[in-house]
Amino acid sequence: MKRKYVYFFSKKHSDGNKEMKNLLGGKGAGLAEMASIGLPVPAGFTITTEVCDLYYKNNRQYPAGLDKEVDENMRRLEKEVGKKFGDAADPLLVSVRSGAPLSMPGMMETILNLGLNDRSVAGLAAKTGNRRFALDAYRRFIMMYGSTAKGIDREEFNHAFEMLKSQRTRQRLHLPSHVKVSDTDVNDVELEELVKEYKAIYKRNIGKEFPQDPREQLWGSVDAVFGSWMAEKAVTYRRVEKIKGVVGTAVNVQQMVFGNMGAKSGTGVCFTRDPNSGENTFYGDYLVNAQGEDVVAGIRTPIKLSEFEKADPKSYKQLVDVRRILERHFKDMQDLEFTVEEGRLYMLQCRTGKRSPASSFRMAVDMVHEKLIRKEDAILRIKDKDIEGIFYPIIDPDQKDEMKRNFLVSGIDAVPGAACGKVVFNAKDAESAAAKGEMVILVRKETSPEDVGGMHAAQGILTATGGKTSHAAVVARGWGKCCIVGCEKLNINYEKEELSVGDIVVKKGEEITLNGSTGQVYRGALRLIKPEPPASFKTLMSWVDKTRAIKVRTNADTPYDAAKAVELGAEGIGLCRTEHMFFDTEERRLAIQEMIVADTLPGRIEALARLLPFQKEDFKGIFKAMNGFPVTIRLIDPPLHEFVPHTEEKQIQLADKIGVPFEKVRLRVEQLHEANPMLGHRGCRLCITYPEILDMQVRAIIEAACECSAEGVHVFPEIMIPLTIDKKELQILENRTRQVADAIIREKKVKLKYLVGTMIEVPRAALLADQIAEVAEFFSFGTNDLTQMTMGISRDDAGKFLPDYVDEKKAGVFADDPFQSLDQAGVGMLVKMGIEKGRRTKPGLKIGICGEHGGEAKSVEFCCRAGMNYVSCSPFRVPIARLAAAQAEIKKNMAKTPAKKAAVKKAVKKAKPAKKGKKK
Amino acid sequence: MKRKYVYFFSKKHSDGNKEMKNLLGGKGAGLAEMASIGLPVPAGFTITTEVCDLYYKNNRQYPAGLDKEVDENMRRLEKEVGKKFGDAADPLLVSVRSGAPLSMPGMMETILNLGLNDRSVAGLAAKTGNRRFALDAYRRFIMMYGSTAKGIDREEFNHAFEMLKSQRTRQRLHLPSHVKVSDTDVNDVELEELVKEYKAIYKRNIGKEFPQDPREQLWGSVDAVFGSWMAEKAVTYRRVEKIKGVVGTAVNVQQMVFGNMGAKSGTGVCFTRDPNSGENTFYGDYLVNAQGEDVVAGIRTPIKLSEFEKADPKSYKQLVDVRRILERHFKDMQDLEFTVEEGRLYMLQCRTGKRSPASSFRMAVDMVHEKLIRKEDAILRIKDKDIEGIFYPIIDPDQKDEMKRNFLVSGIDAVPGAACGKVVFNAKDAESAAAKGEMVILVRKETSPEDVGGMHAAQGILTATGGKTSHAAVVARGWGKCCIVGCEKLNINYEKEELSVGDIVVKKGEEITLNGSTGQVYRGALRLIKPEPPASFKTLMSWVDKTRAIKVRTNADTPYDAAKAVELGAEGIGLCRTEHMFFDTEERRLAIQEMIVADTLPGRIEALARLLPFQKEDFKGIFKAMNGFPVTIRLIDPPLHEFVPHTEEKQIQLADKIGVPFEKVRLRVEQLHEANPMLGHRGCRLCITYPEILDMQVRAIIEAACECSAEGVHVFPEIMIPLTIDKKELQILENRTRQVADAIIREKKVKLKYLVGTMIEVPRAALLADQIAEVAEFFSFGTNDLTQMTMGISRDDAGKFLPDYVDEKKAGVFADDPFQSLDQAGVGMLVKMGIEKGRRTKPGLKIGICGEHGGEAKSVEFCCRAGMNYVSCSPFRVPIARLAAAQAEIKKNMAKTPAKKAAVKKAVKKAKPAKKGKKK
Repeated sequence: MKRKYVYFFSKKHSDGNKEMKNLLGGKGAGLAEMASIGLPVPAGFTITTEVCDLYYKNNRQYPAGLDKEVDENMRRLEKEVGKKFGDAADPLLVSVRSGAPLSMPGMMETILNLGLNDRSVAGLAAKTGNRRFALDAYRRFIMMYGSTAKGIDREEFNHAFEMLKSQRTRQRLHLPSHVKVSDTDVNDVELEELVKEYKAIYKRNIGKEFPQDPREQLWGSVDAVFGSWMAEKAVTYRRVEKIKGVVGTAVNVQQMVFGNMGAKSGTGVCFTRDPNSGENTFYGDYLVNAQGEDVVAGIRTPIKLSEFEKADPKSYKQLVDVRRILERHFKDMQDLEFTVEEGRLYMLQCRTGKRSPASSFRMAVDMVHEKLIRKEDAILRIKDKDIEGIFYPIIDPDQKDEMKRNFLVSGIDAVPGAACGKVVFNAKDAESAAAKGEMVILVRKETSPEDVGGMHAAQGILTATGGKTSHAAVVARGWGKCCIVGCEKLNINYEKEELSVGDIVVKKGEEITLNGSTGQVYRGALRLIKPEPPASFKTLMSWVDKTRAIKVRTNADTPYDAAKAVELGAEGIGLCRTEHMFFDTEERRLAIQEMIVADTLPGRIEALARLLPFQKEDFKGIFKAMNGFPVTIRLIDPPLHEFVPHTEEKQIQLADKIGVPFEKVRLRVEQLHEANPMLGHRGCRLCITYPEILDMQVRAIIEAACECSAEGVHVFPEIMIPLTIDKKELQILENRTRQVADAIIREKKVKLKYLVGTMIEVPRAALLADQIAEVAEFFSFGTNDLTQMTMGISRDDAGKFLPDYVDEKKAGVFADDPFQSLDQAGVGMLVKMGIEKGRRTKPGLKIGICGEHGGEAKSVEFCCRAGMNYVSCSPFRVPIARLAAAQAEIKKNMAKTPAKKAAVKKAVKKAKPAKKGKKK
Repeated sequence: MKRKYVYFFSKKHSDGNKEMKNLLGGKGAGLAEMASIGLPVPAGFTITTEVCDLYYKNNRQYPAGLDKEVDENMRRLEKEVGKKFGDAADPLLVSVRSGAPLSMPGMMETILNLGLNDRSVAGLAAKTGNRRFALDAYRRFIMMYGSTAKGIDREEFNHAFEMLKSQRTRQRLHLPSHVKVSDTDVNDVELEELVKEYKAIYKRNIGKEFPQDPREQLWGSVDAVFGSWMAEKAVTYRRVEKIKGVVGTAVNVQQMVFGNMGAKSGTGVCFTRDPNSGENTFYGDYLVNAQGEDVVAGIRTPIKLSEFEKADPKSYKQLVDVRRILERHFKDMQDLEFTVEEGRLYMLQCRTGKRSPASSFRMAVDMVHEKLIRKEDAILRIKDKDIEGIFYPIIDPDQKDEMKRNFLVSGIDAVPGAACGKVVFNAKDAESAAAKGEMVILVRKETSPEDVGGMHAAQGILTATGGKTSHAAVVARGWGKCCIVGCEKLNINYEKEELSVGDIVVKKGEEITLNGSTGQVYRGALRLIKPEPPASFKTLMSWVDKTRAIKVRTNADTPYDAAKAVELGAEGIGLCRTEHMFFDTEERRLAIQEMIVADTLPGRIEALARLLPFQKEDFKGIFKAMNGFPVTIRLIDPPLHEFVPHTEEKQIQLADKIGVPFEKVRLRVEQLHEANPMLGHRGCRLCITYPEILDMQVRAIIEAACECSAEGVHVFPEIMIPLTIDKKELQILENRTRQVADAIIREKKVKLKYLVGTMIEVPRAALLADQIAEVAEFFSFGTNDLTQMTMGISRDDAGKFLPDYVDEKKAGVFADDPFQSLDQAGVGMLVKMGIEKGRRTKPGLKIGICGEHGGEAKSVEFCCRAGMNYVSCSPFRVPIARLAAAQAEIKKNMAKTPAKKAAVKKAVKKAKPAKKGKKK
């Protein structure tokens, strides 16, 4: 069957509807839908996005038969309107607008008044009895066509108009030089002159006369719309916004209506509710006696809707009716464009309105209370960005100019939010400045565990290297601290204590501002604001918690983070990293370093013994914060070289403090160097080599648990062995763990249950999960490392090539950065195998995820489908994970009713309004 | 049913047979078998290895009922022999010997004459009419029991004997001081004195009288045998020789026969064929009038068998008959121990004889020609070590003392063979010394591609870090060049140009010798010898090639290596690494470095254009060497930082030569630094970022192929894309490859077929092999990297912990180093998945392996079973792979006949003689 390329819409009949966004674009589908429910929409037709796709696939050739189909629809439009396209006496004029499935800046904007030429302008003048209006429409059309469709610099047209106004019009009206000549001062004679001048400009630039054939005008405009799909601005926008799988834009050709026919005419944009507060009030702007482009151009200041009501209550009344009809119809807040032509309202666009994060919650909750939508719809409608938006500070958006002026450089948006402070270049400076109450931004080439103290003290972190799961990003995310990484243009000079970007130099102590949500860095201190979660947030999240089927835990290493996470809804700790604890104080640091440098077992045991009380205290604090919830504690994981100093100066200091020769420290550090530390001597391999570390850590955990338990705290420790690759390896460590733990429990005479399980983070562990499950009491998928190894990509080095892999314009191999959103095809296959095999051995095996993916919506959905018991993520991602888990559950339930599958798919894909006729 | 712990053997009846080696040990099974085929074996019984196992499992307690079973067998022995154990008048004397399933030095040796005591020694004297003999037997027994079973220093006994000889005997015989007193000079009176003295030594050391109860003597000896199983020497031997799965040793108790009863008595060891040359001649030593221990002690020089024949033709004749019977029975060369007691031959041991590598081939081929075995048996009998042994130079084994004296340090035996030369510490020195004709050993902490020239120039390579698949090992193996890596005790000081081990310092220019087969390093120059492959090698390998079903290719990067590999039987190149070519000359190095430093596309293209002719010439040479065989060429693989200099000095030089500022070079090198280069910007990721590199390489390959083809060379290029992780990624590069290649082919008007395929070396590629096979025309499993990523183990860093994982005494997680022998459970699962999924998409998909495993016997067998089309390995491993492939095929065919399965299993497991009654 021949594909249909053109869809007609009018009050009488519309070929399309609102479900056809992908084919007709957002604007086209909205117009078709509005027309079909009887709203006043000027008739017209839409050329589909598929044509755009075919156009590019076929080397910028249109599919056969398109011209015929356009002609047919034009004839249908003429019939509907009762005017002829190109008619000299009473011409049918049309607008041509682009309209992609998603709102997409950077593409061709509107061309109005198309169909005018030297002859029909006279007909229009006669028909409307308004020669000035007709000439004004013509000169606008020439300018729009010339600039928008043909790429002539609009300034040339503006300049000619200015010259006309400042010379001929000013002269004619004898205006003094300090009075500005307004557009409306120009008369028809002058406009006629201007039209001539515009046509001359056109010819000078294009080398041809301005086209008089309306059909040529039309195709020129259609070409321009499709051409703009691949314009750099549009491509960049799609890349930045990660818009994929959209094949092209549609073109909308629509009968012109005129908002510039006098005081009873005008044009406006409005939202059916307040997009900032979310309040259920009508919100928008109106410009009397104007065409749409005047609003955009910002030449005149529009009036509020309340003033519109006063000025033209009849027209306003029509608009209020439309508002009511559309909200009821679409069951969501709509963003509308309209024109009033001599007292008659015409709708030119309707689409789901963008809104602030806080108002997303308010609208969703209000609409449930108004019985417009169901709770499930409300939950599906919230996006992770909405949650981020109500927790993290942001740069006050009123500072647009300052932001433009002070923009310094752009990196990878690792942790959202904003921060500002004085630049420091090392952790020590950050800590001492913070101790003095100063706000600082820690700027490093990269961070390491040694920097953690300084990172914590800083307001925000900026690094020159690394990706979203680099050390800096992971640690900062755990704290919800603004962080920008992989800022490759940043040149950091530690000796001079300055950073530079090109010629711009920022010295230590100068202020900068980070926008972690976009990755942008600014010089100077911009004003920050901190949003407060609205009351509706709490309501919605209570629905979320009732809906979801899997638990949400947190990754937390301190009592503070643990408490914070519980506040944010965490139901346990899925990953407590014990190694960060070694850096908390000088004393701890020294003990671990001495342990590493020691070359005898007694030496190591002695140093470890000094760490024991610290770790125990940390665990007690965490157990107390998590009273009643399980706490998964991972034994030491990073390679030992992460704990020792790497500069000669610091090595000398260390040697001094622990009383060994410098050379010994230096040699040990050199010995510890690894070519690929990620695949090196780390994880449980350390405990195979140095079981005394395991002994100390297990002792600290179990003693802490026993003591808390004696104080009445409900403790559920889960000891987790990292980097397991073999059942026998795990068996050795599990045995040793139980020996240490059981002896303490017997000695303390406490009733304490604990589990011993493992991370599944090496491909081999997933492949052999059936064997490993014979020993492990739980699995926790460490998908950060599992992704690195399964894909062979080091997250610290990925910045050099992974962006190209995710960039559709470059290689476009992956839809998402696999360190942000789980690679479901590859890594996900191993996760599913691991779960399936693990449960084959132990049907009730408790399984969770503790990688960064545990806080990312699509990955959480995957974990739900794969049958995990919980996800775990950093405290600030807990609400996002809760939401994602609930959304996953809703989708699962919807999918269970096969009849609804298609509907679900759509609803889900777009997180769009609820279906027609569905009631609670 | 009760387990049987003791197995009796005698001419009349034997409980065991030769198949029961695991239970009875090698010695016990041999004795039982010889007895049962009617050979003269003194009767006796064997306590099984299972008893040893139970003894250790049960805290050094024997299983219940063992003592009763031993008593029963002792009574049976008494009955058979007609003497009583402990009888004062005519005592039954026995020997007690250990005997594990495998020959195992370090365990308890023989105790002879057990059963003698103060009373029975008189009975023995009376019975034999030889008081001196009886007393001599008794004093020997006390010494052996005291030292061997009870751990008394044998020197104490020797000293007492020496004192006796040098004082009393010398006095009695009035011997002058320069004449040595011989053992046989000592008379019965003196011996009686000596027995007293020995018993006193015993009491002094043990605190108890020498046991007079023969039963106590017996159990003391049995305890000692089982105790020696866990003696440090034995445990170390098993670890070093990688002997696993052997549960314990057996104990053999056997009636004594006496080789020391006069001129018609004696004892000897012999081989049924010459173990050095492999010649079918009788080979051995005989000692007249001696007990076995005299042979071992080396006190007297034995005579050759030919002299034995002359001296005692009757006894010799008996031995020749036994030789004939045993070879026909066991169908393999046997290693025999025997004793002649007053003209009667007794067999004390028979086992398959160890032989030199060259003689392995000769014997196997001869026995086929003699119709003793089938060709398949001959093939199964050859070991990979045999092949290694006939290709690599070795240290002349006559230098045992020098080796002991000059031993310096021990590392990991990366590439077998031996090398000696002057120490140099950098590649440049190696090259310039080699240019002057000097032999050098390159000593480095680790090597990198920059060192390749120097590595090639050196006789051998020694590194302080790295494992068997580190850069040094892999590159050296490709050349069959002696290499020792991971020599962690080695302290290298580049500035001082010296290495040290503890206090010993070796300076640049001093000589050292490497034994790459053992990993041992010696100071000074030891004499090397180079074996020559015997004629029988060629014969056997021709059978091998007719037998095997899969192809054997080679990994070769130069025309020289390619030609060498063809000589060694390679049938194509499975992996030609193109990056080594970049280091061949200064000019090439500069071009690649300039390409890397260039920050514009034209700059890179220009630098690459200079590399093109070099690569093309290399490929032409390789194609010519491989005329008629396929050549798989891998596009650039290592990360770019491997190509640039890392010292400031060299960076300044580079900057100078290519005319860019030093700072630019420095910055670029810094930018290229990676945290985990193994998982970094390398492999096909480079061609995604810099497609111009692919363009140049494909052009070089295809132009070379076209030109060779025009010269009449048969060229089959297979272009291989490394590190693929996704179908789309491969698709992009495959498209580009074909565009470049097809254009050249069209232009040159040559008929050329080429394939485009990929390495499967990242877990994700194996998981998604079905998708990747939609694009790839062949797969080559890169199991080095696949192992690293699947197991999460960096081969360069594994030296720190992997040895513990493979050491049974430590963690013992893995049976083999997974970088040597493929981890079949984990990595192998991915390989099988990859093959299965790949062929599901493309049933005829050509699949091979090009990792180091392609030259390791067990891994090759796995590849055959998994259905690969070929394996590929370094040139010197080609014969080993050919052999392994043939052996795998034979095992597969044998396994196909279900009835034979059990027999096959045994035959195969032990690579032992063919089955009884099986004829060609």
